[in-house]
Amino acid sequence: MKTTLRQLGEHGLIALLKRRLPRGRGVCVGIGDDCAAVRIGRAAGGRLLLLKTDAVVEGVHFDQRASPFQIGWKAMARPLSDFAAMAGQPRWALVTAALRGGMPVRFVREVYRGLAAAAGKFGVAIVGGETVRTPDRFWLSIALAGEVEPAAMRRRSGARVGDAIFVTGALGGSIAGKHLVFTPRIAEAQWLAKFSVAAVSDRRIGAKKKNGGQRPPLQVNAMIDISDGLARDLGHICRDSGVGARLTAAAIPIAPAAGSLPRALGDGEDYELLFTAPAAAAQRLRAAWRRKFPRLPLTQIGFVVRGRGVVLADERGGIRPIGEAGYDHFRHSR
Amino acid sequence: MKTTLRQLGEHGLIALLKRRLPRGRGVCVGIGDDCAAVRIGRAAGGRLLLLKTDAVVEGVHFDQRASPFQIGWKAMARPLSDFAAMAGQPRWALVTAALRGGMPVRFVREVYRGLAAAAGKFGVAIVGGETVRTPDRFWLSIALAGEVEPAAMRRRSGARVGDAIFVTGALGGSIAGKHLVFTPRIAEAQWLAKFSVAAVSDRRIGAKKKNGGQRPPLQVNAMIDISDGLARDLGHICRDSGVGARLTAAAIPIAPAAGSLPRALGDGEDYELLFTAPAAAAQRLRAAWRRKFPRLPLTQIGFVVRGRGVVLADERGGIRPIGEAGYDHFRHSR
Repeated sequence: MKTTLRQLGEHGLIALLKRRLPRGRGVCVGIGDDCAAVRIGRAAGGRLLLLKTDAVVEGVHFDQRASPFQIGWKAMARPLSDFAAMAGQPRWALVTAALRGGMPVRFVREVYRGLAAAAGKFGVAIVGGETVRTPDRFWLSIALAGEVEPAAMRRRSGARVGDAIFVTGALGGSIAGKHLVFTPRIAEAQWLAKFSVAAVSDRRIGAKKKNGGQRPPLQVNAMIDISDGLARDLGHICRDSGVGARLTAAAIPIAPAAGSLPRALGDGEDYELLFTAPAAAAQRLRAAWRRKFPRLPLTQIGFVVRGRGVVLADERGGIRPIGEAGYDHFRHSR
Repeated sequence: MKTTLRQLGEHGLIALLKRRLPRGRGVCVGIGDDCAAVRIGRAAGGRLLLLKTDAVVEGVHFDQRASPFQIGWKAMARPLSDFAAMAGQPRWALVTAALRGGMPVRFVREVYRGLAAAAGKFGVAIVGGETVRTPDRFWLSIALAGEVEPAAMRRRSGARVGDAIFVTGALGGSIAGKHLVFTPRIAEAQWLAKFSVAAVSDRRIGAKKKNGGQRPPLQVNAMIDISDGLARDLGHICRDSGVGARLTAAAIPIAPAAGSLPRALGDGEDYELLFTAPAAAAQRLRAAWRRKFPRLPLTQIGFVVRGRGVVLADERGGIRPIGEAGYDHFRHSR
């Protein structure tokens, strides 16, 4: 009997393929995080090269309600959001566009104006690409390259038991329009990666003294951008960090366009940042955030706990697992 | 009246878009060559980062005669061939695959086996990518990153009047099968980039003595891989170098699958190297090539001349321009 992709699911497929693909020296982060990170050249202790590709397909990631400018913007903003998740600095983009021969040049020019606007806003140069012909369904594939200081890079792994879980903005209902016009949280992520609190000065920490009283600073431990939905992307952090998560239902910021908690948990395409940081740093982090980004809410929505999977605690003390909510591209396909 | 892509043509589109896209510091080679080349980090005089994306689309770049392994091989080998054109060393690949939910997992696994085989043969690690859902037409988009020494990099510009024009292998008829199984000329291109003859020891050179008798070495001046057909890709070298080219019809190596000169000139998808080097170095280059690559023919097919465009000289002394032959993706579309 033939197994199909729909039966296997996206993450099953990635897990299957990952084992069989060639690996190389100098690869710091390979398949399975938001971007790949590799060492380039002889510069020891130098920056890492970050790489990411992504694509949008007509009828899947956008439809006729989207303007050509918005299609270009979304195509570029999606991998930029992956750079935000790693706290990286995007620098160069390549655009592969599959176009129909009968497309109006004006439409294509508007698509590229959207691509250029999103790239330009974050200092990214469009340095190349390819145009290929397609007889029907139009799509764009973007490759992004950039840099990150190894100490600033954040990954899906790294969350620790006792961390507070934070999310930027409000979640759910992105399909009503935000998915076409969102702003990747590049600046916010780079600021978060630099944020730290000297743990040694914090009396609330119960950690043992090591190295003559030196303790590591309290800082963001794990980060991801929400593309598949809060439940599923928090699941990725938990799986890669070997921990569980407990969310407080009443704390989750629900976007007006979503209106209900299940949609905030599972809709996806929020492109907000989801991250964990030691609970002892939470208060100072929130205060510093408010001063720096007064117009973008930062909300603490739960804690990292021992175990596996994500659970949701409601107001009456009920707890239920939500690990399998969210979006799987193949399982949801016809 | 709306202009369509079919009317504008691929190169018209690229010329149009190029002017409007954001540029950045550290970009050595931008849109319009085989790969982009950028400076990364603070390593002065260090290697350049090379970037390239490419895609294959079901029904356009392959059909049902292609095995899934061959589809993967071709998808990876095409951008590898662009790396060859710049004499670069590919290192990391990202694969974006648009797949149908109903596809057999076995088929997808074979595609990735082909991708991995082509990558592995050239020391390339597959470090990431994305799977997206498509309701119908399957496609693969590959992003490649790698390195090149600035002195070794070869471009489409750089051809000089008096250069001999060379091509590897035999041309035309690739659609009969070679386009699915070709070997990117990475090793050959890297060897060519290192090849040089000290001009000062060559009595046949009429160049004036400069810098106390020091003359620049004779070496490969311009290079491209043949994807759109000999006539068209040589046209790219001529345009970017501000020169013309005169081909000798009888010298052009015609593949058995092509059978005729027009097809060798225009079929495309040969993925052979086309390059120019000073005529004074031609004999030694051919001799050294035969020792290094005894199984792959290297043929001198003409000269770089003053002027513009490519002309073909037949045995009876007739000369005709062939500049507009070759493949334009949009003009040839339905």
